[in-house]
Amino acid sequence: MKFGVCYYPEHWPESRWETDARMMREVGLSIVRIAEFAWSRIEPEERRFDWDWLDRAIETLADAGLQIVLGTPTAAPPAWLSLNYPDTLPVDEQGRRRNFGGRRHYCPNSLTFRTHTRRIVTAMAERYGQNPHVIGWQIDNEFGGGRTARCYCHECLGAFRVWLRHRYGALKALNEAWGTVFWSQEYHDWDQIPFPVGAGSSANPSHALDYFRFASDSFVHYQHFQISNLKSAISNQQFLTHNFMGLFFRDLDYFDLAAPLDFVSLDNYPTAGIDRVRGEMYGEEPAPKHYAYDVGDAALTAMELDLARGWKNKPFWIMEQQPGHVNWGTVNPGVRPGTVRLWTWHALAAGAETVMFFRWRAARFAQEQYHAGLLNHDASPNVGFFDLQKMVGERALMAQVTAEPVRAQVAMIFNYDDLWALQLQPHRSGFTYLRLAFTWYRALLALGISVDFRPLGAELSGYQMVLAPGLFLGSADLADKLCEYASTGGTLVLGVRSGFKTPSNLVTDEPLPGVFRDLAGVGVREWHALPTGRGYALESELSGLDGEATVWAEALTPGPSPEGRGEIEVLARYGAGPFAGEAALTVHKLRDGQVVYCGWHPTQRQAEAMIGELATRVGVEGAGQFPAGVLAFRRGRFTVVLNFTEVAQDVQVGEAKGNVPSRGVWVVENGEGHPF
Amino acid sequence: MKFGVCYYPEHWPESRWETDARMMREVGLSIVRIAEFAWSRIEPEERRFDWDWLDRAIETLADAGLQIVLGTPTAAPPAWLSLNYPDTLPVDEQGRRRNFGGRRHYCPNSLTFRTHTRRIVTAMAERYGQNPHVIGWQIDNEFGGGRTARCYCHECLGAFRVWLRHRYGALKALNEAWGTVFWSQEYHDWDQIPFPVGAGSSANPSHALDYFRFASDSFVHYQHFQISNLKSAISNQQFLTHNFMGLFFRDLDYFDLAAPLDFVSLDNYPTAGIDRVRGEMYGEEPAPKHYAYDVGDAALTAMELDLARGWKNKPFWIMEQQPGHVNWGTVNPGVRPGTVRLWTWHALAAGAETVMFFRWRAARFAQEQYHAGLLNHDASPNVGFFDLQKMVGERALMAQVTAEPVRAQVAMIFNYDDLWALQLQPHRSGFTYLRLAFTWYRALLALGISVDFRPLGAELSGYQMVLAPGLFLGSADLADKLCEYASTGGTLVLGVRSGFKTPSNLVTDEPLPGVFRDLAGVGVREWHALPTGRGYALESELSGLDGEATVWAEALTPGPSPEGRGEIEVLARYGAGPFAGEAALTVHKLRDGQVVYCGWHPTQRQAEAMIGELATRVGVEGAGQFPAGVLAFRRGRFTVVLNFTEVAQDVQVGEAKGNVPSRGVWVVENGEGHPF
Amino acid sequence: MKFGVCYYPEHWPESRWETDARMMREVGLSIVRIAEFAWSRIEPEERRFDWDWLDRAIETLADAGLQIVLGTPTAAPPAWLSLNYPDTLPVDEQGRRRNFGGRRHYCPNSLTFRTHTRRIVTAMAERYGQNPHVIGWQIDNEFGGGRTARCYCHECLGAFRVWLRHRYGALKALNEAWGTVFWSQEYHDWDQIPFPVGAGSSANPSHALDYFRFASDSFVHYQHFQISNLKSAISNQQFLTHNFMGLFFRDLDYFDLAAPLDFVSLDNYPTAGIDRVRGEMYGEEPAPKHYAYDVGDAALTAMELDLARGWKNKPFWIMEQQPGHVNWGTVNPGVRPGTVRLWTWHALAAGAETVMFFRWRAARFAQEQYHAGLLNHDASPNVGFFDLQKMVGERALMAQVTAEPVRAQVAMIFNYDDLWALQLQPHRSGFTYLRLAFTWYRALLALGISVDFRPLGAELSGYQMVLAPGLFLGSADLADKLCEYASTGGTLVLGVRSGFKTPSNLVTDEPLPGVFRDLAGVGVREWHALPTGRGYALESELSGLDGEATVWAEALTPGPSPEGRGEIEVLARYGAGPFAGEAALTVHKLRDGQVVYCGWHPTQRQAEAMIGELATRVGVEGAGQFPAGVLAFRRGRFTVVLNFTEVAQDVQVGEAKGNVPSRGVWVVENGEGHPF
Repeated sequence: MKFGVCYYPEHWPESRWETDARMMREVGLSIVRIAEFAWSRIEPEERRFDWDWLDRAIETLADAGLQIVLGTPTAAPPAWLSLNYPDTLPVDEQGRRRNFGGRRHYCPNSLTFRTHTRRIVTAMAERYGQNPHVIGWQIDNEFGGGRTARCYCHECLGAFRVWLRHRYGALKALNEAWGTVFWSQEYHDWDQIPFPVGAGSSANPSHALDYFRFASDSFVHYQHFQISNLKSAISNQQFLTHNFMGLFFRDLDYFDLAAPLDFVSLDNYPTAGIDRVRGEMYGEEPAPKHYAYDVGDAALTAMELDLARGWKNKPFWIMEQQPGHVNWGTVNPGVRPGTVRLWTWHALAAGAETVMFFRWRAARFAQEQYHAGLLNHDASPNVGFFDLQKMVGERALMAQVTAEPVRAQVAMIFNYDDLWALQLQPHRSGFTYLRLAFTWYRALLALGISVDFRPLGAELSGYQMVLAPGLFLGSADLADKLCEYASTGGTLVLGVRSGFKTPSNLVTDEPLPGVFRDLAGVGVREWHALPTGRGYALESELSGLDGEATVWAEALTPGPSPEGRGEIEVLARYGAGPFAGEAALTVHKLRDGQVVYCGWHPTQRQAEAMIGELATRVGVEGAGQFPAGVLAFRRGRFTVVLNFTEVAQDVQVGEAKGNVPSRGVWVVENGEGHPF
Repeated sequence: MKFGVCYYPEHWPESRWETDARMMREVGLSIVRIAEFAWSRIEPEERRFDWDWLDRAIETLADAGLQIVLGTPTAAPPAWLSLNYPDTLPVDEQGRRRNFGGRRHYCPNSLTFRTHTRRIVTAMAERYGQNPHVIGWQIDNEFGGGRTARCYCHECLGAFRVWLRHRYGALKALNEAWGTVFWSQEYHDWDQIPFPVGAGSSANPSHALDYFRFASDSFVHYQHFQISNLKSAISNQQFLTHNFMGLFFRDLDYFDLAAPLDFVSLDNYPTAGIDRVRGEMYGEEPAPKHYAYDVGDAALTAMELDLARGWKNKPFWIMEQQPGHVNWGTVNPGVRPGTVRLWTWHALAAGAETVMFFRWRAARFAQEQYHAGLLNHDASPNVGFFDLQKMVGERALMAQVTAEPVRAQVAMIFNYDDLWALQLQPHRSGFTYLRLAFTWYRALLALGISVDFRPLGAELSGYQMVLAPGLFLGSADLADKLCEYASTGGTLVLGVRSGFKTPSNLVTDEPLPGVFRDLAGVGVREWHALPTGRGYALESELSGLDGEATVWAEALTPGPSPEGRGEIEVLARYGAGPFAGEAALTVHKLRDGQVVYCGWHPTQRQAEAMIGELATRVGVEGAGQFPAGVLAFRRGRFTVVLNFTEVAQDVQVGEAKGNVPSRGVWVVENGEGHPF
Repeated sequence: MKFGVCYYPEHWPESRWETDARMMREVGLSIVRIAEFAWSRIEPEERRFDWDWLDRAIETLADAGLQIVLGTPTAAPPAWLSLNYPDTLPVDEQGRRRNFGGRRHYCPNSLTFRTHTRRIVTAMAERYGQNPHVIGWQIDNEFGGGRTARCYCHECLGAFRVWLRHRYGALKALNEAWGTVFWSQEYHDWDQIPFPVGAGSSANPSHALDYFRFASDSFVHYQHFQISNLKSAISNQQFLTHNFMGLFFRDLDYFDLAAPLDFVSLDNYPTAGIDRVRGEMYGEEPAPKHYAYDVGDAALTAMELDLARGWKNKPFWIMEQQPGHVNWGTVNPGVRPGTVRLWTWHALAAGAETVMFFRWRAARFAQEQYHAGLLNHDASPNVGFFDLQKMVGERALMAQVTAEPVRAQVAMIFNYDDLWALQLQPHRSGFTYLRLAFTWYRALLALGISVDFRPLGAELSGYQMVLAPGLFLGSADLADKLCEYASTGGTLVLGVRSGFKTPSNLVTDEPLPGVFRDLAGVGVREWHALPTGRGYALESELSGLDGEATVWAEALTPGPSPEGRGEIEVLARYGAGPFAGEAALTVHKLRDGQVVYCGWHPTQRQAEAMIGELATRVGVEGAGQFPAGVLAFRRGRFTVVLNFTEVAQDVQVGEAKGNVPSRGVWVVENGEGHPF
């Protein structure tokens, strides 16, 4: 368990470096990330490299005992590159080529840019690939950030057509997979296929989904290109990672991007933009008011952290941890003493093994001037620095806690294809994949149940329960796989709209839930999107499963289980409305396991009631229940309790009782509480 | 009175066609519209036609006893056309040429597109023009839909200049008609005239209004071009129609578009987008909450249906009747049993003689996957199908009801030039032509008074009352015509802003209401736009004419009637504010008739009070008054009562009393109620 | 003190001119502005001038005893110019060249346009430069209006690079001043520098601020070009002015633009768009509801008028005074009797010496048809005309009042660089320069204290108090200057974020408030942006200084005053929250004067408490306190009381008591009230 920091030696006088390095060590930092935006200093003119400053920076930092993570600087092509080779600049949806003057101004499919990428990456790898102080590499920086995941340039169009040819083989197959007979959209030549934008009407959703997939693959391939170039010259002691973004960003398939890396890193900014994302994520349920104003939304942060652990199903790094206020929110509130520590403990509790703070000292210039550093612009310590000092004494405990594995009995399937398909056709405003997943996630959180986010193809046999609330795109293979899981003792939860679509984003022509019909043991007789304020009353003997089905409701028809499988238990029915008397929540006993089908978009409370009941039945254990705004995470003999509220909270863990201060942390070890 | 359905044989396996055809007949459908988006299947390559599949489809449907309406497929040019002839693609207001991938991607003024249009239309006409199973043709599909009514391509610019030359003859006349001396906008060459967009400041409203007119004419001419080509080859037994859109769409002059057709067809989607249009249409008055969530806004639907009847002043078809949920609203609520029947009865009661449902089976692919069909994607019956089955037993009664003519004693003048002029210069946010017309319309509806929408030039002598609330653009001819109507016994109601403008969208230099001064018998001393929340108190002896004048108020000065005409009766005065004591509502006795001038933008309740009083005076009869959300339509001996609310309603028609279920229909014949 | 009017002889039949001129004289107007949009009539074809009509117009007006102000017509280039020389058309931020059809469609840096400017301006100057009836010139019209202040054309890009080269000398200096090392933005060639738009991410704020400065300079230079051409031919009896816009517009540095003019003119439209600007200007404080609906927001108008006086620190003209409703607001309410008179008195009380009404008669055509004139479209008098008639009898009193100078004891520093820097990086939504200035301004207004707005470099020694709430960009020179002011007896008030930045928009690396540290005598230990609804409690012995610090709060650390200067008095402290116990408002005794530092964004009430206390201490006198919505201005022996509310108000000035009618004016002279 280590701490580190992001540092920009090129931003400060060389005479300051040594002081900074010493201060870093003193406050307990041992790793420094550098150079990920320094291309113009490393290669100030095409093919002319200036290594001296970087050599000296590394040396100075290493002399102070710091280890180095080097970033490949491709996220910030220098002026000479962008302006001499304008074909490297990306093009937006409106057909406008981006201007120089920001970052991420390159197209991942530009062959010219590949040439430049190879040169800079190879040169860096050759120079530092065997340097013992360099422990690893961050490839590029936040792929796809700033709405750059999808480029609409000529080279991308060509690459998209090649990608399609590879995927479908023959145009006939593509025409069928996209249903282009609709509105005479049939293609007779690969070169007729346009971008799925600019047609005036909405795009064909099969066409659009494939473009989203292609765009994601483009960055996956571009990252692979960097990896290949790096690996040819670096020591196998040096790791490769990339810094991923949080819940705002959903344009790249992060499981794919994570695959070739040694581990993933997350950039963790709890307060950034939550004013916008909360509206989406809580939908008609009010966003909680109990969080302290400077901590962000703890449930959102928790889901981000669990997702980050899920992308490779292993511990991860925080590559950039918010150290005070940020600069890109609508309002960027000041951060108070204790909050940075709270976030750090949260990250560690969720599976981070290294936490790097962004950034050492606040930038005096350019776009991120108003982003806090551990030091202020004048080099005085900021609130995060003081928190870091406080954590020096907690390092031993932190190491003990993080030595324990995060063990989840429950998995939630997370799949970008489903997310994108729903984004393209929500049918009902406010129905988003992330909101649906987040609703179930909050229920788990409230029950103190740990969860692993897993991709479609993941091994599930180790989990007692698997939530799969959004399997919109169904396939026979997937159905078989899930059937195997459930038949052999698993509990699988399916949600509304399951199996509505095929993988190419057509609607199934089978009775709903399509390929999952046998698995669920129920059919969907009819489904209704429900406007805000309308709901269909629910009836259930389960406590908490009352109120109304809102947002989306399906009338379920339990049928005789095919092939002699088990019975259908109806856990909830519609009590009124057009589906009155019909089943709303069912359990299909499937040999040694069961498949639950939830026929509406639950509220958090309803999801809690369902999961609570199922957890009791199958023996999933939670960390207990805590006041609103207090989260608890179990790792082995430890329970880490985090109070995100504005006031102190009385908390009980087993026999241990404590009054955890506002924005405070309480670690309970084998039933005994450490000091706050 | 017939029922039919829209069908896409090209979307389904040929092996399914016969089953579909049989099912259609069984559920009482006798007409099928096909082929309106099938260009890529009919002409898969330029000049190579494939008729076989279409021949077989027609044959299969005809064999089942179905009659065919063929659509010309020009709304969906195939890829080879759009991509080989990019000049056929329209250009948007920003100057961006539209991309292939949707529909309506053609410019109506493109000469190249005319060539292709002639070929496909002529070929279809030659092949099926004498086919006895083909009873008629739908030309293209929803002209102007998806914001395509106004193209800004080079060819349109040239055509606009020709159009202007034709309208004005000399540039001097145009410069005067547009007042181009303002801001040095004078043109000295026809080729200097630009599109009225992109200038940074708002456009010259005379320039813009002419562009709106030109754009409308462009589609009228394009439709005429198709008609000419069709007529050269088809039997005169085959009708010609086009499917018009509802109140969202206002970019084409539908009276002009209707003129050359045998009848108009309406695409009737009550739930689509009402969340947006209601905000505009009710303005400061709250949109009613009494409608059931899945029925749409009954008053809006009613106005759409009455407008559709008005475009040619005769019975019309519903070419596309919503059969369940749609897919293009912000939220697309599920539709419950009975609702499709309610809509169908509503359409018939308002003058529809044929109702075609859109569509037979929900599309498995492309942009409209989430739009319901009578069958679901898996071919199971949807809610609309069951409603249709229910209506089989009601066919005889329906036929009797629709055999009676819709007889309105009241007309409302509806004019697109006025609508556009006000759209260009509302002066007060929320003052729209449709809102104004809708306010008066709702008052009529509440009183159960039938109304015909008539264009400016229509014969009015048959009506006891004519509402003309929005005659902004006045002309001497129009004033004469209305004077003739009122002098010979008619009752004419004029509204605020009447006669403010000339037909070329200049302000009159005569005292207001301009050319209507003598007709109204009053002058407008001063007018005030009023912000939300501000009103000028009204005083009147008429019950209901109290409260405040809001939105817009004019101080009226009754003058001596010119030329010895009759007296001025003041029905309401301003009680306070700057117009205190001045007239607000006047009646000018004009020989055998009268002209009413309403000096403010009334609320529905105020309009009801006025119309109620006038109706009593002149003997206009309504169907009576009903609970909110219940509408009643009289056709001969029948009264059709429709309950759009969520609960059953006690209703009385003459002596007959009934408790009409939620979303139920009650037909009362000569005072006796049929079963619900 | 004179009245005048804007007139467009080219809009009306020549036969009407004499009548209009006579009517103008009769209603007390003596000056007429003409020709500022008449280019297409003066030069209908390139190089062919038509002077006859203009000669006759001037003669007709002069014959009636009217004096003429001529506008150079460059704001409206004619069609032949824009279309034959499209390079003169400006380009917007998206790269789209503007279309002909509005106004202000030229780029100020276009060399081609300069050629045409020289020709038309010189020709007019030669023809009328010695005409005794022409008393002066208005250059162009509302520079920068309609979002035209910033052009993004190729010529501007070149000019920007030249401007930068001039400012920085060497690229190295620019790279340092902009901090381009960040994200590899370093430039190695002047020609690499792009516009600060279109990069996807936000622009480098130093880059963007320089572009704002350059764009402002471009119009300053373009105006200078016109002035040079005019001066070569006109009499030195003829004045030069330009008509400036109100608070909506902030894209040009109006102090710079004012410098070469004889006096500035303001276009004064109190009701225009206040629905939008009030939201910004009052922020979380509710916009007042006490103003009558047709008067606008009196405090906003007052600030506009005081700013106009400040641009040259001398009396100014109202070149366009709203005479009734306008046409460009979202809602344009009708204006009632008395309101135009109220506005006119307000302008005179604030320092206007001539009031010109816009416009004589409402335009019958083009973009401004719905804008009122003193005459209506039909030449009948409008409400403003009647007010003008009423004012004929008040002329003598008006002349006496305006003969007295406006004497302010208080100045407020207003600086466009600070405004722009904050606009580029508010950090907290709702924190704008104008809102901050307006909050302090409203406090002064409520206390009846007159204020002069002064630019950064202005002489301050004559003021007893100087408010400088927004000195974000600090420089040593400025600090020295302010130190000199305060040391020699002045009272200087600094606000939050003072000295945070350098003039090139980098963050200072000194402890905050940076270069003002010694001046303020306090440091800023930490600062917090505060979201809406969050505040830090304040404690103070000063009445009114209670409640919470909202929006922005800084923890102040009074230090030992450097160099033996005076002590620090703490007037308010934070009572709770993270800054509990720390100073929030301090006074630094600085030799003979004092420097106040206000560590949060005050509310109006808090600002009133502070200024009230300071005014008492240093002997600043106000006109007294009046009911909300009533403003009073002192000029010598006169106090002008203006009642902007909907009801009559009891007012006392000294011993004089009066009940001022709604929208009425009361002049009190040496303690005795004139009639209302």
